[in-house]
Amino acid sequence: MSIIDFLIGKPLATSEERAEQIGVAAGIPIFGLDALSSAAYGPEAAMTLLIPLGLASVQHLLPLTSCLIALLIIVFFSYRQTIAAYPGGGGSYTVAHENLGTFPGLLAAAALMIDYVLTAAVGISAGIGALTSALPSLHSRTLTLCLVALAIITVVNLRGVRESGGLFMLPTYLFLACMMIAIGLGVFKILTSGGHPTPVMAPPPAPAATEAVTLWLLLKAFSSGCTALTGVEAVSNGVKAFREPTVPTAQRTLGIIIACLVLMLGGIAFVARGYGITATDPTSDQYQSVLSIMLMAVSGRGTFYAVAIISILLVLIFSANTAFADFPRVCRILAEDSFMPVSFGNRGRRLVYSEGIIVLAVVTGALLILFGGVTDRLIPLYAVGAFMAFTLSQAGMVKHWIKQEGKTNWHYVFINALGALGTGVTTIVVAVTKFADGAWIIVLLIPTVLVLMYWVRRHYNFVSQQVRTIEPLNMQGLHEPIVVVPMPYWSHIAQMALRQAMEISKEIKVLHVAEEDKPDAFCARWHEYVESPAEKAGYPRPELIQLHSPYRFVIAPIVDYVCKISDENPGRRIVTIVPELVERKWYAYFLHTQRAALLKYNLLIRGNDHISVLNIPWYLK
Amino acid sequence: MSIIDFLIGKPLATSEERAEQIGVAAGIPIFGLDALSSAAYGPEAAMTLLIPLGLASVQHLLPLTSCLIALLIIVFFSYRQTIAAYPGGGGSYTVAHENLGTFPGLLAAAALMIDYVLTAAVGISAGIGALTSALPSLHSRTLTLCLVALAIITVVNLRGVRESGGLFMLPTYLFLACMMIAIGLGVFKILTSGGHPTPVMAPPPAPAATEAVTLWLLLKAFSSGCTALTGVEAVSNGVKAFREPTVPTAQRTLGIIIACLVLMLGGIAFVARGYGITATDPTSDQYQSVLSIMLMAVSGRGTFYAVAIISILLVLIFSANTAFADFPRVCRILAEDSFMPVSFGNRGRRLVYSEGIIVLAVVTGALLILFGGVTDRLIPLYAVGAFMAFTLSQAGMVKHWIKQEGKTNWHYVFINALGALGTGVTTIVVAVTKFADGAWIIVLLIPTVLVLMYWVRRHYNFVSQQVRTIEPLNMQGLHEPIVVVPMPYWSHIAQMALRQAMEISKEIKVLHVAEEDKPDAFCARWHEYVESPAEKAGYPRPELIQLHSPYRFVIAPIVDYVCKISDENPGRRIVTIVPELVERKWYAYFLHTQRAALLKYNLLIRGNDHISVLNIPWYLK
Repeated sequence: MSIIDFLIGKPLATSEERAEQIGVAAGIPIFGLDALSSAAYGPEAAMTLLIPLGLASVQHLLPLTSCLIALLIIVFFSYRQTIAAYPGGGGSYTVAHENLGTFPGLLAAAALMIDYVLTAAVGISAGIGALTSALPSLHSRTLTLCLVALAIITVVNLRGVRESGGLFMLPTYLFLACMMIAIGLGVFKILTSGGHPTPVMAPPPAPAATEAVTLWLLLKAFSSGCTALTGVEAVSNGVKAFREPTVPTAQRTLGIIIACLVLMLGGIAFVARGYGITATDPTSDQYQSVLSIMLMAVSGRGTFYAVAIISILLVLIFSANTAFADFPRVCRILAEDSFMPVSFGNRGRRLVYSEGIIVLAVVTGALLILFGGVTDRLIPLYAVGAFMAFTLSQAGMVKHWIKQEGKTNWHYVFINALGALGTGVTTIVVAVTKFADGAWIIVLLIPTVLVLMYWVRRHYNFVSQQVRTIEPLNMQGLHEPIVVVPMPYWSHIAQMALRQAMEISKEIKVLHVAEEDKPDAFCARWHEYVESPAEKAGYPRPELIQLHSPYRFVIAPIVDYVCKISDENPGRRIVTIVPELVERKWYAYFLHTQRAALLKYNLLIRGNDHISVLNIPWYLK
Repeated sequence: MSIIDFLIGKPLATSEERAEQIGVAAGIPIFGLDALSSAAYGPEAAMTLLIPLGLASVQHLLPLTSCLIALLIIVFFSYRQTIAAYPGGGGSYTVAHENLGTFPGLLAAAALMIDYVLTAAVGISAGIGALTSALPSLHSRTLTLCLVALAIITVVNLRGVRESGGLFMLPTYLFLACMMIAIGLGVFKILTSGGHPTPVMAPPPAPAATEAVTLWLLLKAFSSGCTALTGVEAVSNGVKAFREPTVPTAQRTLGIIIACLVLMLGGIAFVARGYGITATDPTSDQYQSVLSIMLMAVSGRGTFYAVAIISILLVLIFSANTAFADFPRVCRILAEDSFMPVSFGNRGRRLVYSEGIIVLAVVTGALLILFGGVTDRLIPLYAVGAFMAFTLSQAGMVKHWIKQEGKTNWHYVFINALGALGTGVTTIVVAVTKFADGAWIIVLLIPTVLVLMYWVRRHYNFVSQQVRTIEPLNMQGLHEPIVVVPMPYWSHIAQMALRQAMEISKEIKVLHVAEEDKPDAFCARWHEYVESPAEKAGYPRPELIQLHSPYRFVIAPIVDYVCKISDENPGRRIVTIVPELVERKWYAYFLHTQRAALLKYNLLIRGNDHISVLNIPWYLK
């Protein structure tokens, strides 16, 4: 256990849990990391799609970004209201489930869970993408680096670093500072040069245009850019973590996060247009992230560049942490409502929902391996789930206001309806434009997850119906059990098993399995070893039953016999005594046949609820 | 089970075993496959080492081969005597163990076991090497093809095709015929052309000489060539499989095998010299096996070439079968002497020693993966083990003749001593010359295997000392057990567990684990559910014990409590009732916490031999 203690930490008592009390300054890194970091891949994702337009792509960047910013502002006002309405935490599942019903709630939950997996994968791969842009020699190690980062985040989360705000604060503010400086410098140079700044280091030349602009292409670019909006719901999920007065503090935090995001999105678009920056193909060896190109163009490859790149790298990788914080909680809420296995609701030794963390890590790892750790390939899968959850949450809020007792505040209804409409339309645009690129996977996956969740719930209901009772203990029909003792040869173990049998019943059947169909040495000494001492002590003789096994199977004849006498004695329990040599060293496992384990397993699988196994251990001195 | 039935076949009864009765014609493929097939890689292994000599290498081939043939003839006469002395089968382990003692016997066994793994790996990789020489496009798939061939051989052997002689007869004789025709044709053309035949297809040009000839290089080439001798002991292992009169039949079979091998070795060397054939680098893309080059030079790339290559391929792959036939038998003999885990001595459903086959397959697969499926890299590891076993076996025979009652036949002693000397010197030459190339692995591995075998024996002796008894059943101090029933809440399962407890004892302790340290709903209804019905029926009240668990652990408090009452009640057995929900569908495993399994495991590991577990299954209707 010591290695687990070292990695994960000592267990924490339930009473050690305490309410978090955070203000705006700590709230921004904790809840804003996912949203803010998406500035590092959202614009890039849109620009990558515009590569076929060549240099013309930079002209389309500002209008696209304006649409994104407009959507972002609608979403901001909409979630501001959710915070006020659900000061206890209004996750999409909660809001949709309470206001719209079970199915929309589960739909939101399924979409969110898939979205979290993608958040983790995109965060990590984008972070490693930033690193390999800075150090191209690491390019061939992309996948390995992604998996190492994933492993670190997983272990950190299993340790339960819940107050990770402290850890995240420095990189988050460093990132914001670097971005603001770079954008400010870029805007300044563009304005002072009359729109034609001289880059410190020239961006890679724009590729030759291979396509003309089409509405379809712009819609696809917009859909990719929408990934920049993911993560803005985080504050509304965790309202109760804020310091009193919670609602205004949370709303102010959300406001600052959104304002920073708007500034960054707009700034990146403006500077990219001014410097003529286009995206590079992320699958080529010449790949450089847009932010890296922008930083080099604005300020060259000096210390500032290094600091900025490191902050981007850290923020992106840490943004995966949002998924690790929220995914297990969604799983726990679903497990409490019986839509997921109960074990997702068990808190582990460090008060975190360990199982959700492990499942998220495994699925994210699989996804990274499948897509080779390249962000761009994951982007098409992204955003559908997030926007579907947004839409359901906003729609739930509309219902929430309408069904309020007393007068409905139509102002609130209007804002949430606008949010639902904006995100709903975006969901459809993203699903349609990204369908062929991989969104179909999500569109298929969501119903699959839903079916599984309903199946789990049905199974639990079924089990609980059968288990539940308020009848007091029934004392009718209690009988001594029939005890079966398999015995290959006479030994201390055999003696111990027989003694235990005699302690619990007077009706004992000793089974002796032999390959040959005739009595052997064991049978010959049966009277001397067992019958005679039992008689002397006034106990009934145990019955010796010899089983013939032409196929050298030892277990099957015993199981067959036990099932047979169970059928012949309805209402009686059959207890099979299975002695087991326990070796405390793992390697001894290989030295002994695993017959005890196999016998137990076969009796469980083939038996009925009147057949039980009494497992008696035998320890080497 | 149906997929196992399909792959492995239906179980066979012990009585279906029958003695094999084979003659010379069937004996050659069964016992000679390994020896004969080594003609396909032995000369090649020697020639590969001579590549640095360039064209000069062909001059050294005949003297080297003469040494190999001389050694082969000594070994032949030596094993001829072993057959006569051990008509019941004289494997190296048996002969060395009986005549020289346990340590030399185990040394031979360890050497043999390692050798068999290498036989399997070299056979398969050489076979696939022959295939990729003929079809170079498969070259990049070498490892995959090797593993597929290994899987097929494993399954065939698990099915227990013991009379595989029939299957092997055609390729063996086809191989012998093709080799004899090719060699005969080559010799004829060389002789008729005055030593300068015109190749039908020219062999690849000899590489430029990069080294001068040294004794060291020649010794290394000789050591590699010695792999051609491996497998000649097979006949002496299986004498009793032969038809009456067994000894002469076996001796004749061995004689024919050795004669064919001598002809092939000599013939290949002569033809290679005549045509100026040199080996090609097996790691290069231009690799062609020596036999393929020879066949093309002698007869071109026609139908005969195709038939010959296919026969070589089959014979090489099937030669791995020798290892699969013999390795599990060596393991079984060692298991019977308690030097290996008992399970190696259990015959599986098809009357073969399945565990030995599986272990061989796994180790061979690992070796193939480690060495990338290239024979040449495995060759340095080869032959040390085989020759060490040869030497010990021959030395054992010397002792055998000397300790014969009556007059020692010094003629026999001389022949076996010559064999022991020849193979002993070769063992040293091979170990020294191949040491740096990988034979050091074998030299380290053999003592490791020896230590493990002694350790296994010691462990079994230790266990058997503790288990063995001839005391009759002790009827003193039998007491009713104390029954412990963990119960999280009242349910049909809890009720069933309590009923079973009441059937076997009057002293029952119900354990209820709660996170909070105060009575809960379960405790509140305890009297109504349990105490009152028990009293009415005249049974003693079960005792309710509430355990507090601040760390949310459920299992640890139960195990602690059970250990505590066991300490407080020496001489009494504690039976813990563990109900377990049994779901017959595997996927249901994920839906339930595995607490029952964990509780059973922890009680076994932490308990003592007075603590037993009564596992009662509960089935969903």
